[in-house]
Amino acid sequence: MQQKDDVYFMNLALEQAKEAASIGEVPVGAVIVCNEKIIARSFNMTERLNDATAHAEMQAFTAAMTAIGGKYLNQCTLYVTLEPCPMCCGAAFWTQIGRIVFGAKDERRIFGNVKELYHPKTVVKGGVMERECSQILKTFFKNKRNRNK
Amino acid sequence: MQQKDDVYFMNLALEQAKEAASIGEVPVGAVIVCNEKIIARSFNMTERLNDATAHAEMQAFTAAMTAIGGKYLNQCTLYVTLEPCPMCCGAAFWTQIGRIVFGAKDERRIFGNVKELYHPKTVVKGGVMERECSQILKTFFKNKRNRNK
Repeated sequence: MQQKDDVYFMNLALEQAKEAASIGEVPVGAVIVCNEKIIARSFNMTERLNDATAHAEMQAFTAAMTAIGGKYLNQCTLYVTLEPCPMCCGAAFWTQIGRIVFGAKDERRIFGNVKELYHPKTVVKGGVMERECSQILKTFFKNKRNRNK
Repeated sequence: MQQKDDVYFMNLALEQAKEAASIGEVPVGAVIVCNEKIIARSFNMTERLNDATAHAEMQAFTAAMTAIGGKYLNQCTLYVTLEPCPMCCGAAFWTQIGRIVFGAKDERRIFGNVKELYHPKTVVKGGVMERECSQILKTFFKNKRNRNK
């Protein structure tokens, strides 16, 4: 039986990112885990939903709160392939999520410093499967640039 | 005919906040206006939706993007009775909303500095109907404390 560690769950988040890429969305995927059980899976859907706020994390938070029937996710871990933006950090704050594990660092960050936005009780770990999570984004944007030439 | 100025639209946002209070939600209301036309009305629904991210502004952004069929709100103004939190500022950034007018200052702010989170092109104005927007919150929390005694 495969051990369900951070790499295991990040792989599932990466599967979500691949689904996003397959329909032309910026490939960021997320899963939320509670007691080793996945309670939410999602990917970025800003294009499909025509909603600039439909990041993978936002979808995942809402789905997870629905799944557990409560407003707080302090017993849960969010796995997300890209470091959360300020909006998603702010959302994470309100959910009081216990732990956030992200893959790639957000090198394209265009606004805000997220460090002060996390909930003080949220444990944050970055760089899990960083290369794979970063590569899927780089490939996506490279292909996009080539199509636009 | 009544002039449709900031006070006019903030009054409509305050009506939304009153609706929130009437069902036991923290009374924050919002409207989004485009060319003097209201394209979204909403209020905080964190309790009803069991979703800690269901702030008035988040609902309004999604509704407004659906209404105009586009991801950007640069021609729009958000009227909200309370100064936005970092999550909502981050969301506003992604929508590139043209203008934000808020009522009460967020005196209870518990995390984050929002100033660096606004989009550089977003014009922000605070303090419109500040007294009324603040009073409805104070009354709500006072009643809540009294019920909990």
